[in-house]
Amino acid sequence: MTDIKIIDGSVCTAKGFTANGVHCGIRKNREKKDLSLIYSEKRATAAAVYTTNLVKGAPLVVTKQHLANGYAQAIICNSGNANTCNANGTQIAEEMSSLVARSLKIDAQDVVVASTGVIGQPLEIKPIADGIPYLVQGLSKSSVEASEGILTTDTIPKEIAVSFDIDGVECKIGGIAKGSGMIHPNMATMLVFITTDCAISSKMLSKALKTDIESTFNMVSVDGDTSTNDMVTVLANGMAGNNEITSDGPAFDTFMKALNTVNMHLCRMIAGDGEGATKLLECTVSGAKDNKAAKAIAKSVVCSSLTKAAMFGADANWGRVLCAIGYSGVEVDVSKVAVYFSSNKGKIIVCENGAGVDFSEEKAKEILLEREIDIIITLGDGNGDATAWGCDLTYDYVKINGDYRT
Amino acid sequence: MTDIKIIDGSVCTAKGFTANGVHCGIRKNREKKDLSLIYSEKRATAAAVYTTNLVKGAPLVVTKQHLANGYAQAIICNSGNANTCNANGTQIAEEMSSLVARSLKIDAQDVVVASTGVIGQPLEIKPIADGIPYLVQGLSKSSVEASEGILTTDTIPKEIAVSFDIDGVECKIGGIAKGSGMIHPNMATMLVFITTDCAISSKMLSKALKTDIESTFNMVSVDGDTSTNDMVTVLANGMAGNNEITSDGPAFDTFMKALNTVNMHLCRMIAGDGEGATKLLECTVSGAKDNKAAKAIAKSVVCSSLTKAAMFGADANWGRVLCAIGYSGVEVDVSKVAVYFSSNKGKIIVCENGAGVDFSEEKAKEILLEREIDIIITLGDGNGDATAWGCDLTYDYVKINGDYRT
Repeated sequence: MTDIKIIDGSVCTAKGFTANGVHCGIRKNREKKDLSLIYSEKRATAAAVYTTNLVKGAPLVVTKQHLANGYAQAIICNSGNANTCNANGTQIAEEMSSLVARSLKIDAQDVVVASTGVIGQPLEIKPIADGIPYLVQGLSKSSVEASEGILTTDTIPKEIAVSFDIDGVECKIGGIAKGSGMIHPNMATMLVFITTDCAISSKMLSKALKTDIESTFNMVSVDGDTSTNDMVTVLANGMAGNNEITSDGPAFDTFMKALNTVNMHLCRMIAGDGEGATKLLECTVSGAKDNKAAKAIAKSVVCSSLTKAAMFGADANWGRVLCAIGYSGVEVDVSKVAVYFSSNKGKIIVCENGAGVDFSEEKAKEILLEREIDIIITLGDGNGDATAWGCDLTYDYVKINGDYRT
Repeated sequence: MTDIKIIDGSVCTAKGFTANGVHCGIRKNREKKDLSLIYSEKRATAAAVYTTNLVKGAPLVVTKQHLANGYAQAIICNSGNANTCNANGTQIAEEMSSLVARSLKIDAQDVVVASTGVIGQPLEIKPIADGIPYLVQGLSKSSVEASEGILTTDTIPKEIAVSFDIDGVECKIGGIAKGSGMIHPNMATMLVFITTDCAISSKMLSKALKTDIESTFNMVSVDGDTSTNDMVTVLANGMAGNNEITSDGPAFDTFMKALNTVNMHLCRMIAGDGEGATKLLECTVSGAKDNKAAKAIAKSVVCSSLTKAAMFGADANWGRVLCAIGYSGVEVDVSKVAVYFSSNKGKIIVCENGAGVDFSEEKAKEILLEREIDIIITLGDGNGDATAWGCDLTYDYVKINGDYRT
């Protein structure tokens, strides 16, 4: 299998993709972009995964219909309003698609539509209709504007690109994400838009995405709340010129590895930029009876409010990790559990055979004061392993969410 | 069925019960009591429910063995150390029982032992052994000391008592609780000790407790973390002199109603005094397809970090309530959902038929600034209803848990 190279880039790095973002007036703050467009000059195969929340944003319902044929050519996304729980939500999402399609001279069926922001506030079509001509006019190979336009309480844009070879042909995948709050594994995920010039059939693209999110976006939690508007979409326009991937095999494996690199990177960025977060937490579990058990434990730990608050305080309170293992719902031989804390400053064991061990509180503090913390759990129950990502629970999470709407 | 009267009182209100609490030295702070004792002058029937966390505190394991015969006469409980995940935990819990039994001249098998505090720190027997003689000497009809000695980060002691008639004989039930953090429905509960002079068989006492917690302690959440040391224990010494309740019937129904009054009251106190809480949240769901569905939805709402943070900010962000309904795992007809916020200041509808309605933000703010908030959800799916209790998510929750051990 060829190497996957991480390169500078984003959703416009793959051939044939352009993007733009503008402030159209959905948000009051004129400094903040609120409407983004990603466009492929050739119609692309497309795949998506959606939130499992029963309350689904209208844009998701419309996108699902549009992607039923496996093709798309543009993505329109607004921030500042989720267009969810609105009586006319579906109509607005359809109008957004039609307006973009008309302006780009493509089929409205080939438009992916997404919204993120406050739930239950009517979304006016006017600012969007007014903004679309500027959006389309300004399409370019710069992705900065588009990646900014999809953000809500995120503090940094999230972008990545990779290059890889399929049968000697260089292909690229790039992606942007919006994360921050209302993020919890158990479904699709946050808003993620991925573009590639690799030629791959709709069927294999969908298979790649659905397989990969199980170990990437479904393993991220910021606050345990599963959003109504989560979606991950991939567009593949085939302009790299490789032979189209239509079945399993080495080419598909390489594509999977490249997609995984992109998604893993975005996961870490989303978790590390969780609302109010000061730390990225990575929990790795090994020795579980199977991978499913390992996943349940890793998620339980990164979701524990008490563990998250302890990490904010750089407090090596490993009892909370044990507690979260205990209520994960997985059968575990507690007497074989070991827990380590690790970061750039070193690694320390804090629990062995299910009980505490003497450790230097000073060293533990030094390790836990870092920006990225690994919580490493080893069990004695089998060969299952998994990794989950989360963040600490901070004053700022409460501040951001105590008065989000005003 | 006779009336249940709430009266001033606690665990010493029922005939034959005395209690005490002292500072023995487990905690560094001499101002804080850390060892409590409740004693019945007659051997009592006893029942308990325990946490479902797989990682169980050693005291629970020992108590479960002791209560296997359905009888107990004393409860010993320390705070400041959970005696959990310690290599010698079981031995320490057994020693605590034996020391108390010797001092009270009762059987060690008749002692309930409980611990609450930090997990994974060895618990020394010496301060407990030194403290027990003082504990026993000071036993009295005052329950204040005992209710203080079981607290951790609680800000107020939690006590209640009721009186009721069984066949013309006055009986009493009283209880104390420790709550605050690591509290989440899905199992037994926090630490709760209940005493009654009503005569009731072990079997019926156990049935009453197990039935009641389904709608009381299992419906409380502070932070989604299920403790390793949760336990609710009831001792019934029969000294009121009623005919022993040994089967279903009107007398048992009255007892159930009295127990429910005590437990419901303690639930509200535990939720309202959740770590860092400024508000008690009560979520009532009606019109669900069945009670199980209603419970799942009510719990999902009081557990939502985003809803909890919005309530802290008195922000009528009902979209987060809809979102929590949507990820509760229950099939709901979203187009029939209505949501109201209510408090002493009035009641306001914020969502109808699954979509937002115009409401006065000013009035909503006035309602949400109160200390007790009701989130009322009506569905159109059937006749199921349920109530859950929780609290808001605040800066102080993060502060308390960012550095709990030091």
